[in-house]
Amino acid sequence: MDYTDYINLRYRPDANDLIAEFRLEPARGVSFKEAAGAVAAESSVGTWTQLTTITDKRLKQIAAEVFSINEKSGIIKIAYPSELFELGNVPQLMSSVAGNVFGMSLLNNLRLEDINLPNSYIRAFRGPKYGIPGIRKMLRVYKRPLLGTIIKPKLGLDEKEHAQVAYQAWLGGCDIVKDDENLSSMKFNKFYSRIAKTINLRDRCEKETGEKKIYMPNITAECDEMLRRAEFAKKVGCEYAMVDVLTVGWSALQKLRNANEGLKLVLHGHRAGHAAITRNPKHGISMLVIAKLCRLIGIDQLHVGAVVGKMEGAKREVQEIGEEIEERIIRPDKKHHILAENWLHIKPMFAVCSGGLHPGKVPALVKAMGPHIIIIQMGGGIHGHPRGTFYGAMAARQAVEATMHGIPLKDYAKYNRELREALDKFGEK
Amino acid sequence: MDYTDYINLRYRPDANDLIAEFRLEPARGVSFKEAAGAVAAESSVGTWTQLTTITDKRLKQIAAEVFSINEKSGIIKIAYPSELFELGNVPQLMSSVAGNVFGMSLLNNLRLEDINLPNSYIRAFRGPKYGIPGIRKMLRVYKRPLLGTIIKPKLGLDEKEHAQVAYQAWLGGCDIVKDDENLSSMKFNKFYSRIAKTINLRDRCEKETGEKKIYMPNITAECDEMLRRAEFAKKVGCEYAMVDVLTVGWSALQKLRNANEGLKLVLHGHRAGHAAITRNPKHGISMLVIAKLCRLIGIDQLHVGAVVGKMEGAKREVQEIGEEIEERIIRPDKKHHILAENWLHIKPMFAVCSGGLHPGKVPALVKAMGPHIIIIQMGGGIHGHPRGTFYGAMAARQAVEATMHGIPLKDYAKYNRELREALDKFGEK
Repeated sequence: MDYTDYINLRYRPDANDLIAEFRLEPARGVSFKEAAGAVAAESSVGTWTQLTTITDKRLKQIAAEVFSINEKSGIIKIAYPSELFELGNVPQLMSSVAGNVFGMSLLNNLRLEDINLPNSYIRAFRGPKYGIPGIRKMLRVYKRPLLGTIIKPKLGLDEKEHAQVAYQAWLGGCDIVKDDENLSSMKFNKFYSRIAKTINLRDRCEKETGEKKIYMPNITAECDEMLRRAEFAKKVGCEYAMVDVLTVGWSALQKLRNANEGLKLVLHGHRAGHAAITRNPKHGISMLVIAKLCRLIGIDQLHVGAVVGKMEGAKREVQEIGEEIEERIIRPDKKHHILAENWLHIKPMFAVCSGGLHPGKVPALVKAMGPHIIIIQMGGGIHGHPRGTFYGAMAARQAVEATMHGIPLKDYAKYNRELREALDKFGEK
Repeated sequence: MDYTDYINLRYRPDANDLIAEFRLEPARGVSFKEAAGAVAAESSVGTWTQLTTITDKRLKQIAAEVFSINEKSGIIKIAYPSELFELGNVPQLMSSVAGNVFGMSLLNNLRLEDINLPNSYIRAFRGPKYGIPGIRKMLRVYKRPLLGTIIKPKLGLDEKEHAQVAYQAWLGGCDIVKDDENLSSMKFNKFYSRIAKTINLRDRCEKETGEKKIYMPNITAECDEMLRRAEFAKKVGCEYAMVDVLTVGWSALQKLRNANEGLKLVLHGHRAGHAAITRNPKHGISMLVIAKLCRLIGIDQLHVGAVVGKMEGAKREVQEIGEEIEERIIRPDKKHHILAENWLHIKPMFAVCSGGLHPGKVPALVKAMGPHIIIIQMGGGIHGHPRGTFYGAMAARQAVEATMHGIPLKDYAKYNRELREALDKFGEK
């Protein structure tokens, strides 16, 4: 089979096919069709030369096929027979459709835009244990965004200081306090001691405020140690664990989710490092695909961008990811390269917005994402408040309240000094 | 602290610092220095605003510092105090120096070119169990490149056919037979049955040829299943296991290496998916960094490119990676963005060259990589031989022999029909 034999524009995918949409730029002197066929070949059964080990007829039965080509936009769609994938093995899926293809010399650039998973594939996964409904029930907060903070500085506080800052944040009005993505177990801030101390103050704050308060310790580590940390977190009373999904990787993430049938933690996913893969619009893998795989495996809530903060990520893209992870039926959107999906039994995953957020940005963020389906995480926007974390958390909660009542922040700030101070420092937008 | 406070061009890194070299392109309207400082801040302790939770004096003690800037080339070097890293936790390292930084809106592009790990960090890892000397001893091949093949097609053969093709390849002269990167356990070719059948024929072939023959089954899967497969491979007589290092991820890879103290397998690393991260010269992470981390953790042999094959990857880059993973002392090379390294007790890792190779390419490959330090993997270049796998393997072995004796392939082909047929089909270069 030549590479162009992997193209069949008359093919109509059936319900058992996995569909991938790629954006493709062939190398100089290579025809678009040859490059497109090469992607289908290399990500399924093919190699660069005629083989003697199998007949073309048999090979064709399980070969992927390019069934849609748009040379102008560079978009192609490939259908993969489901036999090409091992059920329940995300690394194998990625080694196939997001593996060697990115390095082929027939291409200059290649980006995996979206994947449509067949029902049979989705059925092999559990998805989030809690998801949005479970989390809202646990926190007893149904009608507003959840408000969280990240302890700042990222690194530098000892265990006791860490717990104290967390306490101030909860007391001021945060629902959630989380570790930062590069804080695991440091010489000056050891995991086991930090978790125990922080949960102690969490318990105290719950009594004092009557509100459910959440601590999300970062368990990112080698697989066994990650699970030991998850078990310890559970033992001392955490309901959550957070993990850097991409730097631990797919195998460990699946293992964590399997173990979580017993642990029953809410799993919070940080996406540290994603932009190395997702940022280039011409090459790599879209954040949409990464978010889908997290939902499939069973992360309960995932960072998707800030829409309005310090990190790149167009508003539309963040909204699309929000829909993909929170809806049951995804309608295809040709213009924005979204494929259809039916999530079946897989629960919706909470979208977490974070990165350079502060109280002044809450109205725009809520408007962009919808009030019922976001967790707002502010780090510097709370701990950078002129009077510190406690007042910073108050200001953030006031911003959420004002937004939910439809009151402009400026007006609400007249009667709320903390919010006023925050807006003065950080701005109103 | 402002972002520019993270710049200190008078700083001289000490032996405990971790050094990272980045290539940086600031966003429009952002000064190079501000962008450089932002990278140091975000990858260590900083955030975008002044904090109340810690004094600047304390923060500065553990902050990363940009100590070298070259605006013209875009290259910066950052020194990180070793306290910022948890020993033995690769995901945490990556979440720090290769995490949020790639997504900052102050930058257009950012590429992590190299990392210099301090001795204290390296000492926390085991490195390869066997490495080059251990593998050569096991195979009893000391003076030529090792010759391997990948069973082709990637997917499509059943267990029995797979074992038969492997047998033909060994018999023809291959030392090593490996599964392809997307073959794990399929409906039509189940892992446990395939391994057992293939090892049976491997044993037979060893008796028939008197040579040591190696089978590398692909154990890529969810972490527990990956280990079950490794244990099974060991039990039935495999000396090797292969794993897709990036799609299983760092946590699982560390777990596999820890388990390997008992399993005592040679670990073969396939880099499927690397080019999504490594290919763009302006953004992402270099293959050099990924290769370093694999050696550090303890992969024994790793795909590094073909120099002359179907995948991109400049000759110089592949050679540099080869040196990085196979030498004990790495000398800095400013021009090619290589930092110094002292690998201490960490054994050298074998460089595996694969991707579009065939007998005609052997002389150029050996010249580029050096004869003593490579494993040559040919897939299509063996199974695509006009008379099939057995003769294809003979031709490949003949090409290696000719090259080691300094005989031009064309001349050697006069007396070796198999090689002649291969050169006729695939070309002489």
